[in-house]
Amino acid sequence: MPNFANDPSRKSWLDIKKDSDFPIQNIPFGVFITKEDVITIGTRIGDYAIDMGALQQLGYFEGIELTDDMFMQDTLNDFISDGKKTWRLVRNRLSDIFLDSNPTLRDNDSHKNIVIFKIEDVEMLLPVQIGDYTDFYSSKEHATNVGMMFRDPENALLPNWLHIPVGYHGRSSTIVPSGIPVHRPYGQTLPNGETQPVFGPSKLVDFELETAFITTDANLMGEPVSVEDAEECIFGMVLFNDWSARDIQKWEYVPLGPFLAKNFASSISPWIVTLDALEDFKCESPEQNPKPLPYLQQTGKHAYDINLQVAIQPENAVETVVSNSNFKYMYWTMSQQLAHHTINGCRVNSGDMMGSGTISGPTPDSFGSMLELSWGGKNPIKMNDGSERKFINDNDTVIIRGYCQNNDVRIGFGEVSSKLLPALDLKF
Amino acid sequence: MPNFANDPSRKSWLDIKKDSDFPIQNIPFGVFITKEDVITIGTRIGDYAIDMGALQQLGYFEGIELTDDMFMQDTLNDFISDGKKTWRLVRNRLSDIFLDSNPTLRDNDSHKNIVIFKIEDVEMLLPVQIGDYTDFYSSKEHATNVGMMFRDPENALLPNWLHIPVGYHGRSSTIVPSGIPVHRPYGQTLPNGETQPVFGPSKLVDFELETAFITTDANLMGEPVSVEDAEECIFGMVLFNDWSARDIQKWEYVPLGPFLAKNFASSISPWIVTLDALEDFKCESPEQNPKPLPYLQQTGKHAYDINLQVAIQPENAVETVVSNSNFKYMYWTMSQQLAHHTINGCRVNSGDMMGSGTISGPTPDSFGSMLELSWGGKNPIKMNDGSERKFINDNDTVIIRGYCQNNDVRIGFGEVSSKLLPALDLKF
Repeated sequence: MPNFANDPSRKSWLDIKKDSDFPIQNIPFGVFITKEDVITIGTRIGDYAIDMGALQQLGYFEGIELTDDMFMQDTLNDFISDGKKTWRLVRNRLSDIFLDSNPTLRDNDSHKNIVIFKIEDVEMLLPVQIGDYTDFYSSKEHATNVGMMFRDPENALLPNWLHIPVGYHGRSSTIVPSGIPVHRPYGQTLPNGETQPVFGPSKLVDFELETAFITTDANLMGEPVSVEDAEECIFGMVLFNDWSARDIQKWEYVPLGPFLAKNFASSISPWIVTLDALEDFKCESPEQNPKPLPYLQQTGKHAYDINLQVAIQPENAVETVVSNSNFKYMYWTMSQQLAHHTINGCRVNSGDMMGSGTISGPTPDSFGSMLELSWGGKNPIKMNDGSERKFINDNDTVIIRGYCQNNDVRIGFGEVSSKLLPALDLKF
Repeated sequence: MPNFANDPSRKSWLDIKKDSDFPIQNIPFGVFITKEDVITIGTRIGDYAIDMGALQQLGYFEGIELTDDMFMQDTLNDFISDGKKTWRLVRNRLSDIFLDSNPTLRDNDSHKNIVIFKIEDVEMLLPVQIGDYTDFYSSKEHATNVGMMFRDPENALLPNWLHIPVGYHGRSSTIVPSGIPVHRPYGQTLPNGETQPVFGPSKLVDFELETAFITTDANLMGEPVSVEDAEECIFGMVLFNDWSARDIQKWEYVPLGPFLAKNFASSISPWIVTLDALEDFKCESPEQNPKPLPYLQQTGKHAYDINLQVAIQPENAVETVVSNSNFKYMYWTMSQQLAHHTINGCRVNSGDMMGSGTISGPTPDSFGSMLELSWGGKNPIKMNDGSERKFINDNDTVIIRGYCQNNDVRIGFGEVSSKLLPALDLKF
């Protein structure tokens, strides 16, 4: 089936700013609530949120096999379960509805009043009910940086790293959409040089620059997904800030991995950009040497050229861009991650989310966490307002942005922006 | 509110075997499907499964505030959300309905025909939709045994272990009820003395003897649950076999913890035994030295005296009991685990599940995994059929049983029994 919604020559009758992340070639999917408390599935074109539930009720999806209430739901899980063919049919249809030459909705003011909202008049919700969330660790630069700081500079990468897309399970219950503030967490830490841990708010709260992908029902329990089939099981991607408390992490993480240092919050951008929309931005991955085991081998382009940026905005001050990176630096691809995740028969369901792991590029200004940018706090970052940062301060807002750009079109994710609030007063 | 369902003098008009795990003092909760494909919430008394959906439709829960379809659902999540007062009201009511002196249902044959099923005529399903699953590591004997084998016999316990109920996130999607067979998983392993990993079926599949507890909506994101309040947030417990592939685990687990070695399957007993039913079996925990940080300190009895047993049954042969342990040996209590889990504000929802970690007792015949029982394969276990086991063989069935017993009453969990099938033929 043709993926004609990507055609760069298509223009919408909606007014779209030239540098918008959401031209008619994007058509991401999300869930929002209106001022009238209606929750619906929708898409975004320019600075407009489009109510797909209303479009469906008005008959705009006629001819596509969908359950009657497919878009009148508070999560995308059922739609994602329908599979790639349906995603593409719906995305192509949305492209047609808003195409400049199509008068059907364009010239129907009463329909337009029901369907189209200004983006500032809706509130974005979590787009999926996340059954299980996994976080990978697939940036060689990040794994090397962390290994140099915490273990042995001479043997920064552990022996398994070049053979396995290393990953671990995270917690779904604290994944929140952009805009939801996060409290500085309490926890146990071991002060330098001490032998007894202390309790209190974390002193080293950090962001992690990541993306995450969202899957459909990929397999039955027991049945692996091959690396060739894996991309068909990926619905789309979001930006992902995997909030981390470095001092809690350091004390708790042996031998079973990070736990409370990570599960106090992770923040995502609310619009899921489909792999279909990203198709024209596929690129080569870094060479994998040694060659992975056969179940992880793939040919062709499976990386994606996505520009990524992190900014920190102190309260009432200008923001400072602290990192410019790119998703294409990742050593392991999403399809390799998913093939590895299921090689033991682990079941993957619609709405499951898998984080890339911190995305660090090759140069110091492309590192994906304050831990690396300030090199463990040794080299504070100078901010545009004259202050310095080793980690994240109370009331700082961390903003991650991402977009693809070629000569014809820009496909963006918008942003995930979340503020770190001071630690709560404990009631006990 | 009195917890009168526990009164040991109460007897049912149903015929119950003397050594049953499910006397009228137990009243666990589960979900089952009948031969007519009706799915319902139910309880078990003796060898009978009781359809609580039918009981509700027939008016037997009148006077208790419940939504109309509370028990006509395929998970217990909504009921668990209702909180401890409702759980107790419903459990007391069920105790009354089946009390020998109560003629209402006893003498109503048409109602009995609708409500009561022989246990062999129903199939048990997963009792809850598990949002997030966490596994702890709270047996000092187990952590010490593993530390001795894999790390340093002189410093078997890592420095954080006595201060933190160490835990990590697991995968919800592959938790299955008793009776569902599990395939031997494929994965990467590093053969002894080699530097390059190989791919194939795991050669070291193991069980882990655990229990798990199921929570209600415990908190809002950001707000810790105090150790004093934690027990009120625990609905009940099940037996838990945390299937593990030791060779995959050894190669993959640094630095982020176990992943594919664990997430191919975990099996649970299908009846959730409430903390109310276990009330009379509370006992002292092992002394905690050093004293934990204040947020983990508690007084009184918070451990539970639950006898646990593991048997292995080869295909077409008699079973062999390979371990006899007890839940009371656990160093950290469930309330300490939950208080720790939420101290950073991590949100815990209705239906979330938390595993104890492998429960090993102080003597070699009370260890909770083949890894420990055979001491890494060095001391094979002699089986009653004349064979030997270092780990689990294809077509072995692993059975975990558990019960509490005092002079008056026995409260049991039944069993979790699951067969290890050979590795699947891979399609690629």
